[in-house]
Amino acid sequence: MIKVSVIGTGNVATHFISVFEKSDTTEIIQIYNHNNESLKRFSKFNTTTKLDDLKPADLFLICIKDDKVEGLVKKMNVNGVVAHTSGSVPLLDSPNRDAVFYPLQTFSKDKNISFKDLPLCIETENESDRHILKSLADSIRAKAYNVNSRQRQELHLAAVFVCNFVNHLYHIGHEICSEKDLPFDILRPLIQETADKINFKNPKEAQTGPAKRKDQSTINRHINQLENPVYKELYRYLTTSIQKTYE
Amino acid sequence: MIKVSVIGTGNVATHFISVFEKSDTTEIIQIYNHNNESLKRFSKFNTTTKLDDLKPADLFLICIKDDKVEGLVKKMNVNGVVAHTSGSVPLLDSPNRDAVFYPLQTFSKDKNISFKDLPLCIETENESDRHILKSLADSIRAKAYNVNSRQRQELHLAAVFVCNFVNHLYHIGHEICSEKDLPFDILRPLIQETADKINFKNPKEAQTGPAKRKDQSTINRHINQLENPVYKELYRYLTTSIQKTYE
Repeated sequence: MIKVSVIGTGNVATHFISVFEKSDTTEIIQIYNHNNESLKRFSKFNTTTKLDDLKPADLFLICIKDDKVEGLVKKMNVNGVVAHTSGSVPLLDSPNRDAVFYPLQTFSKDKNISFKDLPLCIETENESDRHILKSLADSIRAKAYNVNSRQRQELHLAAVFVCNFVNHLYHIGHEICSEKDLPFDILRPLIQETADKINFKNPKEAQTGPAKRKDQSTINRHINQLENPVYKELYRYLTTSIQKTYE
Repeated sequence: MIKVSVIGTGNVATHFISVFEKSDTTEIIQIYNHNNESLKRFSKFNTTTKLDDLKPADLFLICIKDDKVEGLVKKMNVNGVVAHTSGSVPLLDSPNRDAVFYPLQTFSKDKNISFKDLPLCIETENESDRHILKSLADSIRAKAYNVNSRQRQELHLAAVFVCNFVNHLYHIGHEICSEKDLPFDILRPLIQETADKINFKNPKEAQTGPAKRKDQSTINRHINQLENPVYKELYRYLTTSIQKTYE
């Protein structure tokens, strides 16, 4: 049984608490938030608003805002492994046994996430602590990857492109449909197939469209069609970037 | 039984031929290509290299390059409906019964596509021809939408954003992984979840990431991390576009 305490009560914390609760090999010892109000949802667990009152555990999982992680961990003085869950924060150098347990996934408040095969990027200050994080990943059927801080920063950057930026392009498609009285549903099979396709060929080979085939008359017409000047520029830049890729 | 002849032997033609062949309510009358070599793969069907030799059919489906469609259709003189399959070509004004049967999907040479619920954008010169296209869509279990030429041009533009441009962002993620010795597999669950998520909330609400939360220190670090100057600019533009959306 892995004894784990969760520091934080936000989105990521809530998803982890929910999956730890379901796991037969994980025991939630305590949940911390500095604000008592946020702990009310978790009243069936032992909770605390004081770092000094943290009970012993194998692992303390830090699920708080990136820019608060270092300050909080440096105030902690515990015996277990202290693992943060942030993609952009390096492995810390606190008085604790520092580690990273970064889930490479996008978490929404009201949508369940499957932890099965979810990539968990693991890094530890002490080699001997690695097995605790690996066991925790196994206990929720996630997939552990050894990823150092430099690699994790690159992954975080890659994630911005394939998740945050991709979602913004979905939004542009959604906006075009709304403005022209077309149902967004009409784009859904295409969105799904575009995501599926790269499981069969790599994205460089999967590229299609006017930019790739240098169909300048369609490109010009599209830029004219766009009314939003920011989207016009974005269309030009994405087209340039595709064309430079295949030069 | 809908009698259909397919004009062209490329990617889109091949997918349509394959699904028509499986349908109990569709009969392939003939396949045309000006080049005899391209027809060899289809020797089990009646084929022709001459437009003048086209046999009578309910529908002639034009699956050739966008910029060749108009020239070819104007050379045809047939009795059935002549429907092109191109997103960017308007409804033609040829001597034939012109129509459009545009599948909003990305087709790959070596990957099967499910036609079930695939959106087919239908437009006809004569209102009375609409039912033929609707029946053809039904016969392959696709979903017919009435979409006029102006709307279709907008859909084509939207498709470039949510398919072609999205795929390019996948490519950038893939390149970052390759360069840093990280397996691209680690990004796949995130890519899948990003595409799934917009079935539960609209993309504007689903947006996350440093641009959305105005995390300027992460944005600056990411731009510094990128070595390719085109990607740097792209990162900046996408960030600006996201931020303007939430102003």
